[in-house]
Amino acid sequence: MASIVVPRLIERKRDGMALHPGDWTALIRAYVARQVPDYQMSAMAMAVVFRGLEPDELNELVDAMLDSGDRLDLKGLLIPRVDKHSIGGVGDKTSLLLAPMLACCGVAVPMISGRGLGHTGGTLDKLEAIPGFRTRLSLVEATAQLERLGVVMLGQTPELVPADRMLYSLRDVTGTVESLPLISASIMSKKLAEDLTGLVLDIKTGSGAFITELAQSLELARTMIAIGEARGCRTVGLLTAMDRPLGHACGNALEVVEAIAGLRGEGPPDLMEVTLALGVEMLLVAEVERDPGQARRRLEDTVSGGSALERLAAMVEAQGGDPAVIADPGRLPRAPVVVDYRAQREGFIRSVEPRAVGYGVINLGGGRRVAEDTVDPAVGFVITAKPGQPVRLGDRLATIHAGTEVAAEAARQVLDRAIAIGDPIPVPPLVSHRVTCDGVTPMS
Amino acid sequence: MASIVVPRLIERKRDGMALHPGDWTALIRAYVARQVPDYQMSAMAMAVVFRGLEPDELNELVDAMLDSGDRLDLKGLLIPRVDKHSIGGVGDKTSLLLAPMLACCGVAVPMISGRGLGHTGGTLDKLEAIPGFRTRLSLVEATAQLERLGVVMLGQTPELVPADRMLYSLRDVTGTVESLPLISASIMSKKLAEDLTGLVLDIKTGSGAFITELAQSLELARTMIAIGEARGCRTVGLLTAMDRPLGHACGNALEVVEAIAGLRGEGPPDLMEVTLALGVEMLLVAEVERDPGQARRRLEDTVSGGSALERLAAMVEAQGGDPAVIADPGRLPRAPVVVDYRAQREGFIRSVEPRAVGYGVINLGGGRRVAEDTVDPAVGFVITAKPGQPVRLGDRLATIHAGTEVAAEAARQVLDRAIAIGDPIPVPPLVSHRVTCDGVTPMS
Repeated sequence: MASIVVPRLIERKRDGMALHPGDWTALIRAYVARQVPDYQMSAMAMAVVFRGLEPDELNELVDAMLDSGDRLDLKGLLIPRVDKHSIGGVGDKTSLLLAPMLACCGVAVPMISGRGLGHTGGTLDKLEAIPGFRTRLSLVEATAQLERLGVVMLGQTPELVPADRMLYSLRDVTGTVESLPLISASIMSKKLAEDLTGLVLDIKTGSGAFITELAQSLELARTMIAIGEARGCRTVGLLTAMDRPLGHACGNALEVVEAIAGLRGEGPPDLMEVTLALGVEMLLVAEVERDPGQARRRLEDTVSGGSALERLAAMVEAQGGDPAVIADPGRLPRAPVVVDYRAQREGFIRSVEPRAVGYGVINLGGGRRVAEDTVDPAVGFVITAKPGQPVRLGDRLATIHAGTEVAAEAARQVLDRAIAIGDPIPVPPLVSHRVTCDGVTPMS
Repeated sequence: MASIVVPRLIERKRDGMALHPGDWTALIRAYVARQVPDYQMSAMAMAVVFRGLEPDELNELVDAMLDSGDRLDLKGLLIPRVDKHSIGGVGDKTSLLLAPMLACCGVAVPMISGRGLGHTGGTLDKLEAIPGFRTRLSLVEATAQLERLGVVMLGQTPELVPADRMLYSLRDVTGTVESLPLISASIMSKKLAEDLTGLVLDIKTGSGAFITELAQSLELARTMIAIGEARGCRTVGLLTAMDRPLGHACGNALEVVEAIAGLRGEGPPDLMEVTLALGVEMLLVAEVERDPGQARRRLEDTVSGGSALERLAAMVEAQGGDPAVIADPGRLPRAPVVVDYRAQREGFIRSVEPRAVGYGVINLGGGRRVAEDTVDPAVGFVITAKPGQPVRLGDRLATIHAGTEVAAEAARQVLDRAIAIGDPIPVPPLVSHRVTCDGVTPMS
């Protein structure tokens, strides 16, 4: 390991130069060993926010982070291991559909997910809306379930990529989250620790995404794909629309209900389109299918034949949840106050702002303001209104699921701000670009 | 005090926006109270390195730093209080001459100095070459001596601007020293805590200075002058040459010897020219003189009449030093090995690189590599060669004062690199620009 003088490394990055080979490895090792204090690492992170990382530096950083802890070892499975990662959206319950669907196609899905971040929802919070469902599994438990069911959905474990956990919590409080290379290293080190053969990235783009600019979304996709491909993990990215919520339901239990409906063939069309587009890519990177049309039919068969729903029920049962919710979603937590939200004028839906809706769910108690907050799984919105759609005065646009009448009234005001009605507007495509190591293909 | 959420402040600065009024005050107060951790402050400092500070932010930061501790209160003196601050050079012993000279002109000089930094020397280290000299005085002691002698030279005290001490030691290890607004705030908060009516800044410029570019030197001067003037301290800056050492002696005791010679009227011409130029400005900001020519004559009289040397002796005695060194500088520590360094070719002195000379003094043991190093006061160089001067083969260019023959040989090689001989070159002026709140005047 290189001997490093940390202030000189910080100055080098600050002045726009790449660190020397070995420096990032030494820095991350020393940081995890608590030989480098947080105050040096946060200054370095801020320098990276401004100066970025050269490709060689980023690769070394990812490897150093991966090497900081344990990894899954799934080579004994003898089938492809594929995951999907989304960079955060509102109403995005695709993971709940994709994990069982893919497992039914002979692909192992070791899905390690996160909690809600900012205005976006988190898969772990949605799963925990199912009474009894355990997301804290050990790597041994997760591997055993994966062997048996082909699918497991869990939270980050302490032994997986500790460097990322340390760095991420530092970046969270030092204004250094917004760096494409640091975001890429954080996501990809966690995903690669799952020992994947393939990965599909859902790069949410638009007003409700963390990244609002197309150019930045493409850059992030290209950066993460290069990291994955360099390590033998076939990686593809889809840029999907986050200028409106995905599907109708926004809120943890409501989203589980909608995911179950989707696996019954009764999901909202936009949710199913994005789910199938991601699923097709997952089957392609798994090399289980070569033809997108054939891949799509195979996924649709897991829905029409009921196997995906059965697999979801089996996973819920295996992880301690109440499997009866799958047949009877009415068993999920339900909010005491449910009120309709209606159009106050005639016209066309111009926008349903995901950021306002996401923060509205948090205000209803369905997400966290600070990490310690508890989450009410029952509350949220079911917003059937979609941009471009014509509406008449009094049409129902949404239902509000709230804990109290007062909260419901506040949520109504949130929807007043989030939903705009006016002249017709063009609606961006749900899936706008496909990014691979070979380049970018516009999809519309 | 404003309630602050530190990560939001860091993000705001990172994104190029000024903090809101009150934010810097709250941040510095909370930092000094150790409610804001170092890792947030270092990230903020790095964001400031890239984004700078708006004038209002800088003013608020300076006030917050000043308010973090005690200050001198010298209003009872009823005479002007003036100091001079240099941003660091090699061979710069002007403070040792100016403090007693100004005191003889009816100006109180409360001079709080620092130690060597990087390749540059520090006034405290030079003073401590005088056997017994105490630089650690309390503010009460310093004030009492100032009342009696009109001059005191001491080190930073714990109660003066603690925010700067905390911030500076953090910046030192996080690559965040190089920021003009942070440098300005650090220097000016310490100087303004001396309760000055006037301040003269010696902005060293050139290859041997911390700031090598003229534009940056002017910007730093303007920034610090605005801070001083806004607080009722008349502030003027001179840009002086640091492309060669000032005077001949480089090394602590050797510089004291040269300063004593200067106060006897026997100093090197370049040292005396810069000393008098700074002294004239000190008398002008003190409003003791209005005419530069008259001010210069008055300063020269303190030398020719012997009063400045007497005042230096009185100060040395008051601060526990051996006053006999003033009459007999041979009592100062002397190096066991003294060897001449001679020209190895004929030609003109093209350069005497201050940075190489400064690090050469450190390598001889006359400065610190790390803060804990002890300093050998006796060692260093006396370099009589000056850029532009013609030399013949074998001419003596310098003497090396070393602890051992081996160290002397290494120092000889340092001078081989530091001193270049070749074709004649134009030599920049010693004092190039005068900067006041009214603007910049080129002096050459």
